[in-house]
Amino acid sequence: MNNKTYRHLPDKTIKIKEKNDMNKKELMQRAIDLSIESVKKGGGPFGAVIAKDGEIVAEGSNNVTIDCDPTAHAEVSTIRKACKKLGTFDLSGCEIYTSCEPCPMCLGAIYWAHLDKIYYANDRKDAGKIGFDDDFIYKEFDLKPADRLKPSEVLMRKEALEAFRLWEEKEDKTEY
Amino acid sequence: MNNKTYRHLPDKTIKIKEKNDMNKKELMQRAIDLSIESVKKGGGPFGAVIAKDGEIVAEGSNNVTIDCDPTAHAEVSTIRKACKKLGTFDLSGCEIYTSCEPCPMCLGAIYWAHLDKIYYANDRKDAGKIGFDDDFIYKEFDLKPADRLKPSEVLMRKEALEAFRLWEEKEDKTEY
Repeated sequence: MNNKTYRHLPDKTIKIKEKNDMNKKELMQRAIDLSIESVKKGGGPFGAVIAKDGEIVAEGSNNVTIDCDPTAHAEVSTIRKACKKLGTFDLSGCEIYTSCEPCPMCLGAIYWAHLDKIYYANDRKDAGKIGFDDDFIYKEFDLKPADRLKPSEVLMRKEALEAFRLWEEKEDKTEY
Repeated sequence: MNNKTYRHLPDKTIKIKEKNDMNKKELMQRAIDLSIESVKKGGGPFGAVIAKDGEIVAEGSNNVTIDCDPTAHAEVSTIRKACKKLGTFDLSGCEIYTSCEPCPMCLGAIYWAHLDKIYYANDRKDAGKIGFDDDFIYKEFDLKPADRLKPSEVLMRKEALEAFRLWEEKEDKTEY
């Protein structure tokens, strides 16, 4: 049976699922390859790809030290590239494959980008074992702001609410 | 007493504190002004400044919809600008003033950037009331991955650990 006939079988959903199961591993393998290439070129050991319908839209790796940008994690960079390529701030319909569990910054970015699903390989504990702060930062998030090591202070809330009032009143705003 | 004499009084620490107390409000006012300007130019109602020794290093506002970049929150953008200006991925010694409590993405970015302290005005509940997902995303973080609305799946951890082994073995790596 050739592929053409195969694709025209009535029960297409089962075949599509099988195709995606294969693609999932291929896509994660690409994210892993990017993480390995990244170490070799002097970046952090993390890679990611964003895919739509099983096709890669964008890929990236951790360039924090290379680009002097603490936000240049693989996931954030790949989200920015995918948005630029697709001309949108909304990646609904896309999935992210990342070689390590997203840190809180990247997980937040994934929510804001409306990615449908996250696939990851290594986890925050693995990252912690080689000196990265992912696990530490997650633990800080679990604490009330006053109990965190990072101090914060609230001031001028009344004055700041003005921008929110303007936002509410604005009729031609673009929401996200 | 003129300012010159004032600055030369022996108990300088008290005067420095008073000066900083005044500067805190000036710096937050600038973040608030940026949030208001942002609404007027079609961006989101959020502004931020990063300061070192009471002087502004970088400032930014929410450009998510303008730049088609879901990561272009005021804090992330301002961190990226400050790092570019100072030529570093480590903003130790700097503080961030943001017109709204950082969302999880931005709070994560603040940790990775090693900013000393966070000042904020509006909070996540205020942002929620005008339609932003900050509070929702924080609630998702409180859940176990399996209980979150955003699905995630772990695969190929064994293969992905290779990059972490390479990182550990690498002698000339730049840590952050």
